[in-house]
Amino acid sequence: MSEIIVGGQKRLVLVTGRAHPQLAEDVAAALETEIVHTDARTFANGEIYARYEESVRGCDAFVIQSHTTPINEWVMEQLIMVDALKRASAKRITVVAPFYPYARQDKKGRGREPISARLIADLYGAAGADRIMSVDLHAAQIQGFFNGPVDHLFAMPVLLRYFREKLDTSALTIVSPDMGRVRVADIWSDKLGAPLAIIHKRRDPTVANQVSIHEIVGQVEGRTCLLVDDMIDTGGTIAKAAEALKNAGATNVVVAATHAVFSDPAPRLLSSDVIDEVVVTDTLPLPPEKRFPTLTVLPIAPLLADAIRQVFTDGSVTSMFDGAA
Amino acid sequence: MSEIIVGGQKRLVLVTGRAHPQLAEDVAAALETEIVHTDARTFANGEIYARYEESVRGCDAFVIQSHTTPINEWVMEQLIMVDALKRASAKRITVVAPFYPYARQDKKGRGREPISARLIADLYGAAGADRIMSVDLHAAQIQGFFNGPVDHLFAMPVLLRYFREKLDTSALTIVSPDMGRVRVADIWSDKLGAPLAIIHKRRDPTVANQVSIHEIVGQVEGRTCLLVDDMIDTGGTIAKAAEALKNAGATNVVVAATHAVFSDPAPRLLSSDVIDEVVVTDTLPLPPEKRFPTLTVLPIAPLLADAIRQVFTDGSVTSMFDGAA
Amino acid sequence: MSEIIVGGQKRLVLVTGRAHPQLAEDVAAALETEIVHTDARTFANGEIYARYEESVRGCDAFVIQSHTTPINEWVMEQLIMVDALKRASAKRITVVAPFYPYARQDKKGRGREPISARLIADLYGAAGADRIMSVDLHAAQIQGFFNGPVDHLFAMPVLLRYFREKLDTSALTIVSPDMGRVRVADIWSDKLGAPLAIIHKRRDPTVANQVSIHEIVGQVEGRTCLLVDDMIDTGGTIAKAAEALKNAGATNVVVAATHAVFSDPAPRLLSSDVIDEVVVTDTLPLPPEKRFPTLTVLPIAPLLADAIRQVFTDGSVTSMFDGAA
Amino acid sequence: MSEIIVGGQKRLVLVTGRAHPQLAEDVAAALETEIVHTDARTFANGEIYARYEESVRGCDAFVIQSHTTPINEWVMEQLIMVDALKRASAKRITVVAPFYPYARQDKKGRGREPISARLIADLYGAAGADRIMSVDLHAAQIQGFFNGPVDHLFAMPVLLRYFREKLDTSALTIVSPDMGRVRVADIWSDKLGAPLAIIHKRRDPTVANQVSIHEIVGQVEGRTCLLVDDMIDTGGTIAKAAEALKNAGATNVVVAATHAVFSDPAPRLLSSDVIDEVVVTDTLPLPPEKRFPTLTVLPIAPLLADAIRQVFTDGSVTSMFDGAA
Amino acid sequence: MSEIIVGGQKRLVLVTGRAHPQLAEDVAAALETEIVHTDARTFANGEIYARYEESVRGCDAFVIQSHTTPINEWVMEQLIMVDALKRASAKRITVVAPFYPYARQDKKGRGREPISARLIADLYGAAGADRIMSVDLHAAQIQGFFNGPVDHLFAMPVLLRYFREKLDTSALTIVSPDMGRVRVADIWSDKLGAPLAIIHKRRDPTVANQVSIHEIVGQVEGRTCLLVDDMIDTGGTIAKAAEALKNAGATNVVVAATHAVFSDPAPRLLSSDVIDEVVVTDTLPLPPEKRFPTLTVLPIAPLLADAIRQVFTDGSVTSMFDGAA
Amino acid sequence: MSEIIVGGQKRLVLVTGRAHPQLAEDVAAALETEIVHTDARTFANGEIYARYEESVRGCDAFVIQSHTTPINEWVMEQLIMVDALKRASAKRITVVAPFYPYARQDKKGRGREPISARLIADLYGAAGADRIMSVDLHAAQIQGFFNGPVDHLFAMPVLLRYFREKLDTSALTIVSPDMGRVRVADIWSDKLGAPLAIIHKRRDPTVANQVSIHEIVGQVEGRTCLLVDDMIDTGGTIAKAAEALKNAGATNVVVAATHAVFSDPAPRLLSSDVIDEVVVTDTLPLPPEKRFPTLTVLPIAPLLADAIRQVFTDGSVTSMFDGAA
Repeated sequence: MSEIIVGGQKRLVLVTGRAHPQLAEDVAAALETEIVHTDARTFANGEIYARYEESVRGCDAFVIQSHTTPINEWVMEQLIMVDALKRASAKRITVVAPFYPYARQDKKGRGREPISARLIADLYGAAGADRIMSVDLHAAQIQGFFNGPVDHLFAMPVLLRYFREKLDTSALTIVSPDMGRVRVADIWSDKLGAPLAIIHKRRDPTVANQVSIHEIVGQVEGRTCLLVDDMIDTGGTIAKAAEALKNAGATNVVVAATHAVFSDPAPRLLSSDVIDEVVVTDTLPLPPEKRFPTLTVLPIAPLLADAIRQVFTDGSVTSMFDGAA
Repeated sequence: MSEIIVGGQKRLVLVTGRAHPQLAEDVAAALETEIVHTDARTFANGEIYARYEESVRGCDAFVIQSHTTPINEWVMEQLIMVDALKRASAKRITVVAPFYPYARQDKKGRGREPISARLIADLYGAAGADRIMSVDLHAAQIQGFFNGPVDHLFAMPVLLRYFREKLDTSALTIVSPDMGRVRVADIWSDKLGAPLAIIHKRRDPTVANQVSIHEIVGQVEGRTCLLVDDMIDTGGTIAKAAEALKNAGATNVVVAATHAVFSDPAPRLLSSDVIDEVVVTDTLPLPPEKRFPTLTVLPIAPLLADAIRQVFTDGSVTSMFDGAA
Repeated sequence: MSEIIVGGQKRLVLVTGRAHPQLAEDVAAALETEIVHTDARTFANGEIYARYEESVRGCDAFVIQSHTTPINEWVMEQLIMVDALKRASAKRITVVAPFYPYARQDKKGRGREPISARLIADLYGAAGADRIMSVDLHAAQIQGFFNGPVDHLFAMPVLLRYFREKLDTSALTIVSPDMGRVRVADIWSDKLGAPLAIIHKRRDPTVANQVSIHEIVGQVEGRTCLLVDDMIDTGGTIAKAAEALKNAGATNVVVAATHAVFSDPAPRLLSSDVIDEVVVTDTLPLPPEKRFPTLTVLPIAPLLADAIRQVFTDGSVTSMFDGAA
Repeated sequence: MSEIIVGGQKRLVLVTGRAHPQLAEDVAAALETEIVHTDARTFANGEIYARYEESVRGCDAFVIQSHTTPINEWVMEQLIMVDALKRASAKRITVVAPFYPYARQDKKGRGREPISARLIADLYGAAGADRIMSVDLHAAQIQGFFNGPVDHLFAMPVLLRYFREKLDTSALTIVSPDMGRVRVADIWSDKLGAPLAIIHKRRDPTVANQVSIHEIVGQVEGRTCLLVDDMIDTGGTIAKAAEALKNAGATNVVVAATHAVFSDPAPRLLSSDVIDEVVVTDTLPLPPEKRFPTLTVLPIAPLLADAIRQVFTDGSVTSMFDGAA
Repeated sequence: MSEIIVGGQKRLVLVTGRAHPQLAEDVAAALETEIVHTDARTFANGEIYARYEESVRGCDAFVIQSHTTPINEWVMEQLIMVDALKRASAKRITVVAPFYPYARQDKKGRGREPISARLIADLYGAAGADRIMSVDLHAAQIQGFFNGPVDHLFAMPVLLRYFREKLDTSALTIVSPDMGRVRVADIWSDKLGAPLAIIHKRRDPTVANQVSIHEIVGQVEGRTCLLVDDMIDTGGTIAKAAEALKNAGATNVVVAATHAVFSDPAPRLLSSDVIDEVVVTDTLPLPPEKRFPTLTVLPIAPLLADAIRQVFTDGSVTSMFDGAA
Repeated sequence: MSEIIVGGQKRLVLVTGRAHPQLAEDVAAALETEIVHTDARTFANGEIYARYEESVRGCDAFVIQSHTTPINEWVMEQLIMVDALKRASAKRITVVAPFYPYARQDKKGRGREPISARLIADLYGAAGADRIMSVDLHAAQIQGFFNGPVDHLFAMPVLLRYFREKLDTSALTIVSPDMGRVRVADIWSDKLGAPLAIIHKRRDPTVANQVSIHEIVGQVEGRTCLLVDDMIDTGGTIAKAAEALKNAGATNVVVAATHAVFSDPAPRLLSSDVIDEVVVTDTLPLPPEKRFPTLTVLPIAPLLADAIRQVFTDGSVTSMFDGAA
């Protein structure tokens, strides 16, 4: 007898960095499992250490991290966790990055710039990641930056469900806050059967020296305007757009976005009178100081848990979005 | 004396596939050099053979190919030429692909699709290419698909120079033929100081079953409309846009694009009465049957030659577009 | 409970390019399964698109393509299909290329040539293929061009079974059509216990300027001559060999080859009077215009299906050829 | 039905090079399996050939080799065996190298030296190894030389068990034979609760021209001294250390090491009167001419077998050393 | 004329991250050149941006960064800078990391730990670095973590020069603060011809439950003790060692280290009465709050500049340390 | 001034392993330079050490090794030398292996065999080789095993020059010793305008149980027979062929081969009466015990030196063989 044969089995393991432990807990709860405990620490000089407290040998590991500020800490922590999984003989390693770091630096806008979104994909690959899972990539082309499968999830079904219950879509206009995000607005327009408006920022030809004006292209007067974007960072563009819409006669301005980066002064700008509601998901942690009364936070964990289950069981992630994305 | 020392020198070599020899000749003429002759043949069963008739050892090689129909032939020929250069000890190999093949398949629009634009970058890399040079990538993110330098050139200075001489920009409106190309139109609008209009295609909410209507967002009546895009393939979108613009009262409709793919029935559609002029470059060959009276073809070879010279002499490609791109 | 455990299982998936759908259907039938449907299309400018219509996540995928003319189209289609499988999380991807493309360019015959057969292996690897399966490689060394397992199948058992039934081996001589294929003939000679003859093409030393003569080395008068080769392309070498054999008194000339490339004018040459029968397999499609009365086509699908089954179930491909190859 | 599904299973396969077949047999016996027979031969010009006599397709293969003299033969044989496994479709390949070859060349001590221990890791990787298993690496950093999991086993539990039974630890002093091995001695000191002494070799400041003296730092008079090291090569350092200890009044000198390289003249030096016992494991073969009366050889096969079982069943190798390493 | 030939030349370019600009300025000054200006910024959400303001095409680039707290920011900034250089066609990229980040996590001390020092080497490689230059690596084996040249510089000549002028070496004893750093102390002992002492921390066998005691092995009474280490982080080990030495009768305690990490509470501990002087280099920035009266900081820039010059001109870095390291 | 510019230059460096130092000396002499001295040693346990005694930074290095018995030692020594060059910042590394090791294991003749010739190429690549130079590869396809340039040199011009002076080609017949080497003989036949004969070994159909007979195909009676092969190992095939030729009436039998492996009992067999002369090159060392009176050894160093010069100066290796190979 020159071989030993045993039946195969697959073991799912969830681990998480320290950026947003609640999100990982919620995902684990939705999967009816628990996070494998990691001894993660930051030493006095800032170096990060991580060690798994249970065996991960042969497992199908999902490493959840939320890339909030300080974003480089959390990227490095996740890379270190991937390295530790690789060296501990995990069978397959999926980086779960609901908000893909450095997604906005996805091309060289000018010479001698980095393409940091590609660099991030390369770093994950170098550390040992086999797959990436993310939500609403700033540009869908980022999927092509990684040399392996990328499960690109869409928060739109989560957001749409909310708006379909809350808003009267007959008086609704979808608004893109600038030219660069028109495609996102176009999809919302299609899904909700609502007309589209665009805010166009350009140099005023009648005034010298780069004075930019905000034109509203499309009908907004007397309408509920739904300003949509994939992320809100400092909130400046959204705030100006909302003000312009109200000035142009919009009755309500509601803002929807997947990723609530909410860098300063976003909370202040977004809680302004000209914005009636802001709806986001919790792909990024939202501590009390970033919250305000008109903010609604929808949970993203059910979507992530569902996708992880499909990946683990060789089901279909695509089918999760049929009819929706 | 345990070493031999000689002075270093760099040698530029241009070679070309068989898709568009005139373009390569024009580039060589602009560089005041000649194409290194390649014995390239297609065997009876369709396999391609290529062999350089001069030594290319140690050279800085630029492999020019134009990815027209049959595009897969020309991709494969270029890959074979790169492999032959690598094995013949070329020092550095730059793929010159003025029209990047498969650029439109730059993301997974749906599950289980390829990302062929990334695949193409991987194939060039696997064959041995060190660098890529291309003109007006369909999405700038394609730069990030290649793990090495990509010299992304812009035809805009070439086109702008022509229009600044020809058109009265005071009566001009820049028009994007659909939502997906708004960013290109936005840059033209900025460069020419002209207002923007967009053609928005969406389901008619008043009619069942996916009937789409073309809305024109912005002012076009009594204006010269400049429809801009990076490429024109079958011409369908452009033709419908031009018709809509004329119906809406545009006085003139001029079309500008970098890449004249001109698949059937483009020549017929573009020579319609509703289009007053079509201006393109010769990144792709334009045989007589694809030409028509209102077509203007601007030469791209000077731009390519200038970029190749900058790359070869360690100059700056970025500076070629200062103030322009 | 910090993990989820499920039993493992393996799922075989067959997909096919559009070059030779009948072959793939035959393989599927032999395996008692069906081809997973692929939405494959060629766009107006020649770019190919492919998308799987069922989930392939976690599967053991076999991508069947037959590399007939236009061969570069079919190579590229297969590469795109591999890329799509990789990005759709297939677990393992086997390229099934019964006729290995560019197999004849397996070395640099002269300086500055490509080694296209190695390039093809690199391209498959770059796209994401884990393994290759092929039949009767032009040179067995091509196995070493791929950095992974290559299942090298032999059509000889299929062909031998046919000839053992049909031919009187006591009057048989195996003939190699030229010096380069002597090894193949040598194996046939051994398998059928028949003597060997070789056709040697060389410069006539008695005549100036490269006139080549065909010497027959070995006894062929009054014999049934079986001319063997791995492939027949334009048929020129085989036709001249057959003529020389008949001139030298051979009673019958039968031709056997695995791969029926049959580029023009092969069908005409092979249906000449001096050839009594041509026996090939259907590794390549044989449309009606390539067929002729004396042609016998043996099905290769059972062999491929058997090998795929062995690979999928971790059986032994080697044992398929014990006593045969 | 467009797929075929079968249950998964895992198959362990053990193969071995020819350096130390007894060790592999012992491991197989401990695992209650058998070695898969390999037809391994050395041709007249020294080239090695290896072929597996059973199918290894899809298996979890462990390639055992013991890197004794001639060490380069055995490294190359193991590389060839890994290559053959890779090409025969083994699913996972673990190099079992109980004594890691070239472990002492783990850094550039001076400019223009190789880092051969890293090179060895690269060679294993290039041949197709997925994992490495080794015992008592000369420097633990060697784990980081391989881009994949390294199971680093410790012989200390095996050795400690022996000494706890044999020696009176109350009169024991642990001795490091030189400065470079102090860390190993430190661990032994901790495990056995015994004080530490160090032998320090340095230039005599009172004498010109590099005369080195051996200082003993710590108390050894009237003590049983346990000289510990990871390996014993020619035995020179250990012999001089033992002599110095006896001269300094040590009552007994016992030597413990994992790897018995025992290059000439080690057997003669180690069987000297000043050494009372030498205890090693059989990670390397010990033919009769390397053995002597005061040598005790402890079997390493149970440890290797246990680790292989943990790796194969996705258990925990770490837990094997809890409380011990 | 089918080629263009120009004379070759090499161009050195220095760029720097924002962690320790003074060090880069000092290096540039020593090389009689200037730093190429980089537009480096941190966005509101913590993402870093960097762009070179001059062409770096074809240059031999050295990217200087000092890995002080927040260390992950500075690692990521350097990776981004390397990516930008790669994409801007720099010819060769050398990472200059005087204090190698994560050097202490150079092995798996326990199961399921990362090997972050190897990960860092992989990340530099993935970003596009061709070479690494560092000073006094915590373990020399880290050289082997990178798949390319590592210029390992030694600060010892800089420190030795200082001590040879300042200290009376006849009354000097070199002290290692713990067992793990004995090798460094051994080299100092050799270079200065001074005896060695070691501080050994171990469990007190007479007391239960892990009480550790500090033994001093070697003669320190009445001696000037030079405590040496490669780095000082929180200073705890050094402070306890100094106290033990003074208690044992040392007349003076001087501390020497290359890397002044000086995490809290190092400045307080090191300025204690029991330490007479602390001598370090400025591989890491030392802001006023980390400085104290008994601290001497020696400049490392001349060493780095000299090594960069040797690398750039194909001289010898090894020869810089002949007779010294 | 933010850059430093110096003129480029190239430096050729020759180093050699210890297998055949005379060959390297001859190459150096032909190039009018000297070998860079290497401190190469084999330690007691068989591990090899190598260190260059001069700086090799930035050089174009050629590492000469001759792969004679013990072949694995010399392969490993060369790999270690390549690693040391890579880590010492050599700019380009060419492996010079006149006799390519393991060339005969260039394919899987049966299942579960290695392809060791590919493995060797992978090992050279893993160690850091950029290029390979070799003479008369056993199969030209081996060029395709390396992912980079392979300079494939031909000894034929060296041998032909000798025979054209020595032999009367009018009475000459070229003989292939078996079916596998017919292609080599075919080229000789073409070059010398001499007819061809082949020795065919096959089972005797009249006798049971695998008795093989040697048929001579072609005219040899009264002719001078030139038996040609790329290498002679044990000499058995050649000796039997010579005997058969003499028995068939050949007046003279001369043997020509590039690589004189001459494993035991080749010297005895080749010095038999039936062989009139044996002509080889010195790609492998020929110590006195392998030499015999009828042996002629032609120097290969001029060919290697010429090729190295062409490679170093970016000349043409192809042109060295124009009209000859």
